[in-house]
Amino acid sequence: MYREILYSIADYVATITLNRPSRLNAWTPQMAAEVRDAMTAAAADNSVRAVVVTGAGRGFCAGYDMSLLGPEPSSADGVDLAGSSDNFNQQFSYLLAVPKPIFMAINGPIAGIGLVFGVFGDFRYMAEGAKLTTAFAKRGLIAEYGVSWLLPRLIGTMNALDLLCSARVIESRDAERLGLVRTLPAKGFLEAVQGIAREMVTTASPRSIGVIKRQVYDSQFQSLAEACVLADKEMRASVKSEDYREGVAHFVEKRAPNFAGR
Amino acid sequence: MYREILYSIADYVATITLNRPSRLNAWTPQMAAEVRDAMTAAAADNSVRAVVVTGAGRGFCAGYDMSLLGPEPSSADGVDLAGSSDNFNQQFSYLLAVPKPIFMAINGPIAGIGLVFGVFGDFRYMAEGAKLTTAFAKRGLIAEYGVSWLLPRLIGTMNALDLLCSARVIESRDAERLGLVRTLPAKGFLEAVQGIAREMVTTASPRSIGVIKRQVYDSQFQSLAEACVLADKEMRASVKSEDYREGVAHFVEKRAPNFAGR
Amino acid sequence: MYREILYSIADYVATITLNRPSRLNAWTPQMAAEVRDAMTAAAADNSVRAVVVTGAGRGFCAGYDMSLLGPEPSSADGVDLAGSSDNFNQQFSYLLAVPKPIFMAINGPIAGIGLVFGVFGDFRYMAEGAKLTTAFAKRGLIAEYGVSWLLPRLIGTMNALDLLCSARVIESRDAERLGLVRTLPAKGFLEAVQGIAREMVTTASPRSIGVIKRQVYDSQFQSLAEACVLADKEMRASVKSEDYREGVAHFVEKRAPNFAGR
Repeated sequence: MYREILYSIADYVATITLNRPSRLNAWTPQMAAEVRDAMTAAAADNSVRAVVVTGAGRGFCAGYDMSLLGPEPSSADGVDLAGSSDNFNQQFSYLLAVPKPIFMAINGPIAGIGLVFGVFGDFRYMAEGAKLTTAFAKRGLIAEYGVSWLLPRLIGTMNALDLLCSARVIESRDAERLGLVRTLPAKGFLEAVQGIAREMVTTASPRSIGVIKRQVYDSQFQSLAEACVLADKEMRASVKSEDYREGVAHFVEKRAPNFAGR
Repeated sequence: MYREILYSIADYVATITLNRPSRLNAWTPQMAAEVRDAMTAAAADNSVRAVVVTGAGRGFCAGYDMSLLGPEPSSADGVDLAGSSDNFNQQFSYLLAVPKPIFMAINGPIAGIGLVFGVFGDFRYMAEGAKLTTAFAKRGLIAEYGVSWLLPRLIGTMNALDLLCSARVIESRDAERLGLVRTLPAKGFLEAVQGIAREMVTTASPRSIGVIKRQVYDSQFQSLAEACVLADKEMRASVKSEDYREGVAHFVEKRAPNFAGR
Repeated sequence: MYREILYSIADYVATITLNRPSRLNAWTPQMAAEVRDAMTAAAADNSVRAVVVTGAGRGFCAGYDMSLLGPEPSSADGVDLAGSSDNFNQQFSYLLAVPKPIFMAINGPIAGIGLVFGVFGDFRYMAEGAKLTTAFAKRGLIAEYGVSWLLPRLIGTMNALDLLCSARVIESRDAERLGLVRTLPAKGFLEAVQGIAREMVTTASPRSIGVIKRQVYDSQFQSLAEACVLADKEMRASVKSEDYREGVAHFVEKRAPNFAGR
């Protein structure tokens, strides 16, 4: 069904695999469209509670496929979003609005537009020894697709400027030191990330996780008072939910939870 | 005078002790009201220059007291603040407007609404080995009382999402690695935090500290230009203060300062 | 030509040396005016791609020169900026708008207004063993010139409040742990920073670096959508640049780049 990605589901966790291994999964408009389609499917699918993204073969995503003719298109998935004022409907920022946690399982080299994609995930795990670079400044390009907005908010202005301006290559350990990723051993890497994702969405309420993800990203554009008012509203709604009843019940009964996700 | 907290003052430092040790100091509307009352008293009292908050017995605050009937009230201290647009007069955000530094001395387990309370303090110290969890998502609840706004600004979006969505329990060392707290040995813990607080408010001007605290939190809602204009105004006011005269005098005379706090 | 600074250029890197070594390079209105003049010159000079700032002798800048009569002026460089609403034209914030990376090479003690100056640089390197303090609160002063706005965005609210309220002196290693600086050995320190600066601006496109610096600081005052729209516009412009052509060419030809900077 997909040409440039793989999509599979096991035990609540959907896995999207960028699948152009002969080209280190270099990004294309087709891949962008397929990833967006798969994310939309995962968001709508009740059997999916978390999404893990990884790369086939030895890379994650080495950047835009430079073998494609012409300059890099401004709308990599073919949808012209230029001028949209929706913070959560830009080229990659739609990922922030997917109501399920997205785990980037960075198994190998990640660069350029691949890094932008990775940065818009909620959680970043990186295989020990893998390498990362923004790449843009070495190509004469700039900080693409909102990464100049997001990266300073993840690792601070000085570190973001360093990675973006120098475009130097760093290893997983340095990326972890900056707070950009968490490293895991390369052996059993994907399974480990899938396990972390599965543990999150089975021991905590998927409904809660969806609301919290929205709260955290919305709060970037809210005053503290607005965030408090929204939290109040969400709290009142949550205590009427099935997951709240189960959340109290499993605690009182001292057993593992069995959340319905609503 | 208080039923669920203790309040004492020694050498410029007020200590508020959450005092329901048999229930790990679980939060109640009564406790919330008493804490707010004590904070207001500390703010107005010239003999107080810093506030330390801790818990009686082996815990700090294990969350909302689930033995109280009904769902958690949206206004835990009985004051209906819903809809207020004042960033510094929400359920816990009033702590940011107390013009004296607030030191959270987290002596033991901190969870749920107890963690929200802790996060709204200016400084967090944690006894080695103590445990911390947001708890909400395991109960089917959401990110309460503005913690979704504040936590990402303290420890970054990825770490905040992790603590809020997984609701996993972490130890003091991990909390320190995230930049959320600073750890101190469990032995002599409260005295150590009180000592740090006392040192701050006797070696630096209490007037300056109050202004700086306001500047830092106001700056969250200001442009850089607005913050600069305010700083200019505050600088002009400060050089007319008694503390400025003492600040220069003790430096020139190479002696310890003796600030009046005005 | 300058009385209180030195200015030199070598291999794309301009070096500004605060030059009042007998007073640990204490800040004066004259020094402020000369630094601003030199920064303006560096910005306009095609032979300059990066600016390094350091101090003559054993200090970087020990703060405002208290031997000057009267209270610290509110406009340290003699230009009255009070009331300006331009985020990038305040006392020190003009540094953020210099379209070339600014490296603060903190060779020795940095305090007070010297620290504010240092914080407004893009990159901070600090010689091992050097000491740092905000100083203000020990003088009865406040968080000057927008440092209350910038510092929390660099190292988080708790750490910023700690440095500003306690005004305690910390060593380079602690400053590095906070993410405020990167440390380098004291021996060969300035040359090492100049080398890092030179490597950045010769291996990456100076045009890209200038655009990215602007993107990162502008993003502090933009929504994510605005940042994405700007990135789109900048990307379209960049692919028409000489540096983009060279950025692709040196990659394809597997050779070191030779950017023109436009």
